[in-house]
Amino acid sequence: MTTATVLGLGQMGHALAAALTRSHHPTTVWNRTSGKAHDLDVTVASTPAEAVSASPLVIVCLPDYEVVRTVLDPLPLSGSTVVNVSGGSPEQAREIDAWAAEKGIDYIDGVIVATPEVIGSPAAALYYSGRRDAYETHRSTLAAFGENAIHLGDDVGMASAFDASLQSMLWTSMSGVVHMFALASAENISAQDIAGSAKTMLALFPDMIDLLAEQVDAGRFPADGASIAATAAVLDHILSTLHSNGLDDGVLRAVRADLHQAIEAGHGSEGFGRLSTLAAR
Amino acid sequence: MTTATVLGLGQMGHALAAALTRSHHPTTVWNRTSGKAHDLDVTVASTPAEAVSASPLVIVCLPDYEVVRTVLDPLPLSGSTVVNVSGGSPEQAREIDAWAAEKGIDYIDGVIVATPEVIGSPAAALYYSGRRDAYETHRSTLAAFGENAIHLGDDVGMASAFDASLQSMLWTSMSGVVHMFALASAENISAQDIAGSAKTMLALFPDMIDLLAEQVDAGRFPADGASIAATAAVLDHILSTLHSNGLDDGVLRAVRADLHQAIEAGHGSEGFGRLSTLAAR
Repeated sequence: MTTATVLGLGQMGHALAAALTRSHHPTTVWNRTSGKAHDLDVTVASTPAEAVSASPLVIVCLPDYEVVRTVLDPLPLSGSTVVNVSGGSPEQAREIDAWAAEKGIDYIDGVIVATPEVIGSPAAALYYSGRRDAYETHRSTLAAFGENAIHLGDDVGMASAFDASLQSMLWTSMSGVVHMFALASAENISAQDIAGSAKTMLALFPDMIDLLAEQVDAGRFPADGASIAATAAVLDHILSTLHSNGLDDGVLRAVRADLHQAIEAGHGSEGFGRLSTLAAR
Repeated sequence: MTTATVLGLGQMGHALAAALTRSHHPTTVWNRTSGKAHDLDVTVASTPAEAVSASPLVIVCLPDYEVVRTVLDPLPLSGSTVVNVSGGSPEQAREIDAWAAEKGIDYIDGVIVATPEVIGSPAAALYYSGRRDAYETHRSTLAAFGENAIHLGDDVGMASAFDASLQSMLWTSMSGVVHMFALASAENISAQDIAGSAKTMLALFPDMIDLLAEQVDAGRFPADGASIAATAAVLDHILSTLHSNGLDDGVLRAVRADLHQAIEAGHGSEGFGRLSTLAAR
């Protein structure tokens, strides 16, 4: 079996190393502080240089890209493949890729959409971008983290962009959920009373996402349901309700600003998906 | 069968009148402009006064509460039950309820979460608030619009507040979806390529909503997944990605502001649900 090295044994790095050993890959690990590998069947390197010399494939799982650069910079990595799953932006991925190219390193940027507990299972989604040839070489080893893996393209920033896009949707929606609870609570409606209706409403989202995706890719936004203008009127009702309850309206006011920008640009009679094309500042 | 009157034959009013006739309720209708009832088996009144005199139950489905007040004000409605499903705020519902009480009208405020096509089917969700005795009297007639109906409470503003809370969640989440597509598109990822992963992520929402609802009602917000502080760091990555793509960051910046307000208030190590308690301005 291919050998592999993991730099960084935080919760996620630990889960990655464990997954490699479960798939019988001889695994070498390094962590800034020792003792994190006591329950793993791995070789513990005492320095990062020793760790990366042990394997052609180096998985990097460190707190951020600054730490990644600091740790990797002095290492003998020429000819190695580095798969960096530390969280960062597409721009950071492109910067580190340029640095790696100079050093003769095959760099792959990766994003893990999973909690450490589900690494190796179908519940883990993994996205990679960058050097496709290097990805194909190590694909079967990387499969230890989960079969649900996609190489998005040679542009090394794509994995991080993909992740940022999804997380942007996730946290905006989560904000919608907590503000729903806040308004309900202010009006003496319990969270558990409204949760069922919220779930019914969210059950419409898969179809809505498919419809919007088709519209975005086709560049046409018919108002099948509510038009942008009608939605703006709905938001005015909600904002007035927030105000009369003395509630924070920042997020919804920003949503309303997007709608009004669309109306001013002449898109009031189109569907909500049109907003996806108006996000350029 | 009980007779009923419908004021306003827009798309939704038309669907309500049609549902009443399907359930064999003799139905009288009035609309500002004529001709809207030609395909309905109803009595068409030539004035609103004639329409409301025909039935003890008057369903009002007009563009907004201002029109509702203008139309209802001169009518002989004392002793009638008015169910108003025109869109408005809880405050507007309370105002009109006070007016109705003076006039000796039993007022019920209603919200329909459905498209006109699904009225009468289980896909239509209906929420009512206000005079429970009047609601119980007319419940079996109102069931023509759909069996999936809830009376939320005697506070007449609750139906509208319930709706505003849900719609706030809906449109904030929809904003999250279109901004996801905008960022993906700026990074050369097609909408249909990211739609599948977005749906996988949203599949986690029903459980998340139940968990958050429990936390909100209990007033305790352990960080089971990501803490507020960790989420704020994620948003910084996303915002930097938006900026390097020259994309609008208004909504996400507002979400981030909520997180930082929570961190400053000492809740950084708690879970996202804590934000629901910090929405007071």
